[in-house]
Amino acid sequence: MTRPASVTLQDVAALAGVSIKTVSNVVREYQHVRPSTRARVQDAIDRLGYVPHSIARRLATGRTGMIAFALPAIEAPYFAELAALVSTEADGFDYRLLIEQTAGSLEDERAVLRGRERGLIDGLIFQPTVLDAAAIEEFRGSTPLVLLGEIAAPPTVDHVMVDNTAAARAATLHLLQSGRTRVAFLGQSAWTEHATTRLRMGGYRSALEEFGAFRDDDLLIPMTRFGAFSAEAAVVDAIEAGVRFDGLVCFDDLSAIGAMKALARTGRIVPDDVGVVGWDDILMAQFTNPGLTTIRPDKAALVRTTFRMLRERMDGASGPGRHELVGFDLVVRGSTAS
Amino acid sequence: MTRPASVTLQDVAALAGVSIKTVSNVVREYQHVRPSTRARVQDAIDRLGYVPHSIARRLATGRTGMIAFALPAIEAPYFAELAALVSTEADGFDYRLLIEQTAGSLEDERAVLRGRERGLIDGLIFQPTVLDAAAIEEFRGSTPLVLLGEIAAPPTVDHVMVDNTAAARAATLHLLQSGRTRVAFLGQSAWTEHATTRLRMGGYRSALEEFGAFRDDDLLIPMTRFGAFSAEAAVVDAIEAGVRFDGLVCFDDLSAIGAMKALARTGRIVPDDVGVVGWDDILMAQFTNPGLTTIRPDKAALVRTTFRMLRERMDGASGPGRHELVGFDLVVRGSTAS
Repeated sequence: MTRPASVTLQDVAALAGVSIKTVSNVVREYQHVRPSTRARVQDAIDRLGYVPHSIARRLATGRTGMIAFALPAIEAPYFAELAALVSTEADGFDYRLLIEQTAGSLEDERAVLRGRERGLIDGLIFQPTVLDAAAIEEFRGSTPLVLLGEIAAPPTVDHVMVDNTAAARAATLHLLQSGRTRVAFLGQSAWTEHATTRLRMGGYRSALEEFGAFRDDDLLIPMTRFGAFSAEAAVVDAIEAGVRFDGLVCFDDLSAIGAMKALARTGRIVPDDVGVVGWDDILMAQFTNPGLTTIRPDKAALVRTTFRMLRERMDGASGPGRHELVGFDLVVRGSTAS
Repeated sequence: MTRPASVTLQDVAALAGVSIKTVSNVVREYQHVRPSTRARVQDAIDRLGYVPHSIARRLATGRTGMIAFALPAIEAPYFAELAALVSTEADGFDYRLLIEQTAGSLEDERAVLRGRERGLIDGLIFQPTVLDAAAIEEFRGSTPLVLLGEIAAPPTVDHVMVDNTAAARAATLHLLQSGRTRVAFLGQSAWTEHATTRLRMGGYRSALEEFGAFRDDDLLIPMTRFGAFSAEAAVVDAIEAGVRFDGLVCFDDLSAIGAMKALARTGRIVPDDVGVVGWDDILMAQFTNPGLTTIRPDKAALVRTTFRMLRERMDGASGPGRHELVGFDLVVRGSTAS
């Protein structure tokens, strides 16, 4: 399967017994080549290992036509939905998309920035979860970069996110305004270390203060890790430990779905006994029973803004990092019906 | 951002004022390089556009170190979970992973095979949904290829799948054996054109015959497209049209989740009134209320088998296509409790 870089259009044309122009037409997938001719050219291309649209040509232009999207876990519904949008957008600009999973590990996040793909990609879209701004600054190479999500970005790097504090505040106020008095927050336990949890909990606290609502550290329900299973266990534990609450702001939809299972297992009715709010508006938020009230980030705007900034950087734009916020909605469904 | 292919380790070493060995150590991310030295070398690499682990070197060896996974839609939970496994496995072999969405369109599926990535990838994992075996044979290039899923593969191509007929039969028998008498099948409507639906419906029919159960074409509930929304609409339509059933074999978990919402909307209790079986065992199957009984394909074995065959092809193995089956389990949860 070796593909010597030296094979040329001429070599293919000679082997296939056609003109160079015909080979070029086949390579560009023009429609007006006869099937039998196309088959003969394709056969010569395969036999010689000729590389059309080639890496070689891409190297000559300094572009590879590839971008990477580095994210914690592709199977998390929010990231899967985001990756689908990024893939479609990349396709529209004729970029191929590399997917990199970091599993939220410091080592993998550093490797992404250090340029595991250096020379392979023209640009990088990266949602870090554990790196801080100083580390991002230290490890980033020269590849054009846009950061997604809630982590603090260094002042040199473009960054797109939703206003997490405002959104968490809106979610919490929604529960308080419907008459709930003991609203709990379900999130990661290493509060001070996880940027997203910290921002969302800040919005939760600010709503409680603004509303003069009951506030108790017992109402901060810790999860040992992200995801529906950990959320389910955390909510069952809290209930068994005697924590009483009639509203629950969840870190994301997956944890809300886990929480709803825990509430069902312990005989609580949603929304009568406990109102539940999630975050992300993943597809499944419409198929829980009852449907899940949730923060819906404007994912389309997120991806569009990201590509605009990334393309400007790939086209050579310099200057300090830009920080853009995209909008969100609170989508009210049955899980908080009053 | 041009990166001339001609920049060498020597150039970098000269600009950074260090030895070639030091540059090499930085490129290979050895730990015993002083941070200040690393920073200087990195700066020289960035300024010169040197390409370590380079495409150039990959071209020289005839390998690019990349494989592609082409699938209908990354945001569908089954494919997202599969992509996560493929990504992890690829990482273990030090391959980078390109993701290609086809949206199940004939044009995109042809483009995948024709080698939109030709020269860019060492191998291709492809789950087609509409191409037939003749088209796969016609359009495939010389890139090592393994097909996933239920579509008929040409005899030249490696292919991995679950025995869909046996699994659908097991799902249907499970409902019949628990005393259900009117078991319906929810799937794509263009029955004869969609390979997966055809195989699964075949298993459903064979179970009905074996059990001597009631069989009526009214019990074939068509969806206009795949996914939870279409399933929900289809089941509401069937119920409103007077179709009576006490068991439902669904095309996949997403359609089962849509069906469960339709049943709730129309006042049917799962499992008392209708037992529901899904397919894929996506994460959400454990968080529906009640939990969803489902066919669990052995996804880990699927991915492991795929990589074994792909690597053999990339290492030059010739010979006819191999067809391998991986196992499945019927996972019984509350949606079919008797």
